[in-house]
Amino acid sequence: MKQDTICAIATANGMGALGIIRLSGDDAVEITNRVFEGKNLEKVKSHTVHYGFIKDGSESIDEVMVSVFLAPKTFTTENSVEISYHGSPFIGKKILEVLLKNGARMAKAGEFTMRAFMNGRIDLSQAESIADLIASENEASRKVALKQLKGGITDEISILRTDLLNFVSLVELELDFAEEDVEFADRTALTALLNKIELKLKSLIESFTYGNALKNGVAVAILGKPNAGKSTLLNALLKEERAIVSDIAGTTRDTIEEVIHIKGNAFRLIDTAGLRETTDEIEKIGVEKAKEKSDKADILIYLIDAASTDISEDIAMLKSLLRDDLETVICFTKMDKNSAATHSFEEKIKAETGQQSLKFLEISAKENVNLDELKNSLTHFVESLKTDENVVITNQRHFEALQKSLQAVKAVEDAVTEKITTELLAYELRNALEYLGEISGEFTNDEVLGNIFSKFCIGK
Amino acid sequence: MKQDTICAIATANGMGALGIIRLSGDDAVEITNRVFEGKNLEKVKSHTVHYGFIKDGSESIDEVMVSVFLAPKTFTTENSVEISYHGSPFIGKKILEVLLKNGARMAKAGEFTMRAFMNGRIDLSQAESIADLIASENEASRKVALKQLKGGITDEISILRTDLLNFVSLVELELDFAEEDVEFADRTALTALLNKIELKLKSLIESFTYGNALKNGVAVAILGKPNAGKSTLLNALLKEERAIVSDIAGTTRDTIEEVIHIKGNAFRLIDTAGLRETTDEIEKIGVEKAKEKSDKADILIYLIDAASTDISEDIAMLKSLLRDDLETVICFTKMDKNSAATHSFEEKIKAETGQQSLKFLEISAKENVNLDELKNSLTHFVESLKTDENVVITNQRHFEALQKSLQAVKAVEDAVTEKITTELLAYELRNALEYLGEISGEFTNDEVLGNIFSKFCIGK
Repeated sequence: MKQDTICAIATANGMGALGIIRLSGDDAVEITNRVFEGKNLEKVKSHTVHYGFIKDGSESIDEVMVSVFLAPKTFTTENSVEISYHGSPFIGKKILEVLLKNGARMAKAGEFTMRAFMNGRIDLSQAESIADLIASENEASRKVALKQLKGGITDEISILRTDLLNFVSLVELELDFAEEDVEFADRTALTALLNKIELKLKSLIESFTYGNALKNGVAVAILGKPNAGKSTLLNALLKEERAIVSDIAGTTRDTIEEVIHIKGNAFRLIDTAGLRETTDEIEKIGVEKAKEKSDKADILIYLIDAASTDISEDIAMLKSLLRDDLETVICFTKMDKNSAATHSFEEKIKAETGQQSLKFLEISAKENVNLDELKNSLTHFVESLKTDENVVITNQRHFEALQKSLQAVKAVEDAVTEKITTELLAYELRNALEYLGEISGEFTNDEVLGNIFSKFCIGK
Repeated sequence: MKQDTICAIATANGMGALGIIRLSGDDAVEITNRVFEGKNLEKVKSHTVHYGFIKDGSESIDEVMVSVFLAPKTFTTENSVEISYHGSPFIGKKILEVLLKNGARMAKAGEFTMRAFMNGRIDLSQAESIADLIASENEASRKVALKQLKGGITDEISILRTDLLNFVSLVELELDFAEEDVEFADRTALTALLNKIELKLKSLIESFTYGNALKNGVAVAILGKPNAGKSTLLNALLKEERAIVSDIAGTTRDTIEEVIHIKGNAFRLIDTAGLRETTDEIEKIGVEKAKEKSDKADILIYLIDAASTDISEDIAMLKSLLRDDLETVICFTKMDKNSAATHSFEEKIKAETGQQSLKFLEISAKENVNLDELKNSLTHFVESLKTDENVVITNQRHFEALQKSLQAVKAVEDAVTEKITTELLAYELRNALEYLGEISGEFTNDEVLGNIFSKFCIGK
């Protein structure tokens, strides 16, 4: 079947020195050639670039450079073209119009990558990693996405899957010889393999907490009584660390949360946009709101003015906020102004909350006292999530597929242990294979695919 | 001298499917090769594209496609490279960092184009047209810029300039034989040429009004008494015509003025952002403000509610607004509600303002009556600015250089007529040549160049 030719602007929206329109499909070169004044593009070699003009009839639209990529060694494995034009969005649109007039159609979101997947150039987890790479805003998420693009996850799983596939063949062979009651598949070896797979799956599943922190950032709530020094600390953190991303335009996330990057890791400061303005947040929002925020957080930084004489309210607040999976750092603030011993406070908090492992820091945002320590605590938290796993799971879909795989593998184990019928064993094995194949996209359905690719940007 | 290697992100800011970093300079290929994992880029042919990874030491930054362009057949005439990466601004920045570490430096705004000019690939007016192309937001400005990029203006002038240069040589020859009192340069032929140049210059200068309208849009003021129907008309115009650009992001102009495009021409609605909200604008701002707005306008659309019984205030307002170079269309509005004869109003306005050539229209924005007529009036105004000139001047610098050239040519004519010394004639001729050469950049200075290229975006 002939693959129709899709086209789209592939570069970011807005004015730039240059913009790129890409085409992919059987007629990509032919269509471009039809509107191109310059060399005959149908006669050029693959992976070459050519100077000329895009024309609409007799009228020149723009002076361009056209790159021709011939099947099958292209991103989509189809004939592909990239048109580099003077980066006015208006010109980009004009060129698209001419291409549409000449037989191309507008690409849907993610359609180029979807074709790369459909045509077997990349597997599904690699396709997903491309979206992750484009969206990566920090070092950690870039690294994880690139590793995934290089096939990390699929490699890990496909070895195990191939081994399992061998057993499936043997078990199904047993079905063919059902009357003879033979066992081609060594049940002990099968159990050993299943255990191995189970361990691997568990370890990958465990890595999701870390992966999620890398990809989406760690949620940090900064709370404290009015005038505890919250806004000063926030500004100090944002000023110093946010500069790293401040010259990168197009990060739209800022409107919802402030993000700071420390040593390549992202930390999302929960709902700080408003916080910075008002200093009597806790008073206004009350315990309930504070709890709501800390409930969403992985880390709580709780501030207490070191000059306080009575910290009973803080202790009451902390009692309602603390939980086992909430990393908590209690900071005594404004240490520039105070030489007060905060030790008695520490003991009191430990005693009354019953938490002996709380971290305490004496900080001064103004004089930069112990801010590095505070940041180290944050980084340390991310590091503590690390598993031995070489590959890190960052994708919710993968996480779910791995959980389903684990269940299926356990079902096979049960089937072996309970010596149920070979038919049922074969069924459970097939089931496990399918779930394991979901990550790479060997087993999938249109709905899942549509869902994955619709999240891509147009032109990818 | 070795040309240092510059680099910059060339695509628009923000997230896209792909981003492009370009390099230019003697070591462009060598530097890229140093951080590239893939083919040896120093051994590939010009205008070819190569798959690989950008590395920072042993760490992969991104999977990329690298295009290599070898001197001299490149945009800058220098060795050039384009790196196409996954379009995350963060990744773009990482790659830039690696390039800077390996010997490239950040390009200044417009530096690629400046090198193209400095190295003689394009002349100055072509360089300027590139900035215009990138900024073009409508069909008319795109066309004019592309024509200029193709060398339109320079071609027109350089022929005349070459002819004049011949005379300069002859006149200067006369200086060498000063004692012998010979005339190598035929004064009659020189005068004829000067007349020809003068006509050409005048015609080009005249085209600036049209060019300016094409490039910057025509300024339109829409005024009228409270409830004359201004906001309804504005919304109708914006709704219908603005859709053309509404899907093009990155047009930042909107914050200042609304721009509508009619038949490829841009019309800037003066200060409408606020106007649309309030209906008692004139009342509030008074005659003074209304006058301020119409003073800035090329076209005035003045609205009168067709149901009015007394239009004396409107006539008073019109009297203070009308001027010879202000195209005025008086619209009787809300014609859906009124069948009133507006003819008597027309006569009254003509009589009292003493303007017989005013245009009148009966419109209904709500029912779309005569809106096309109104738009035709706008388009017609732009068309009326057209000159016979094939080339259109759109650039203030060109406009000024042409005016100075015209003065200089007139000075030469005077010198010929008044038969002043050959020395002075030669001086005036040189002067004229210089001004004529300013447009193409044959004669220019660093300040002018700096001024021109600093307005470019980075990466161009």
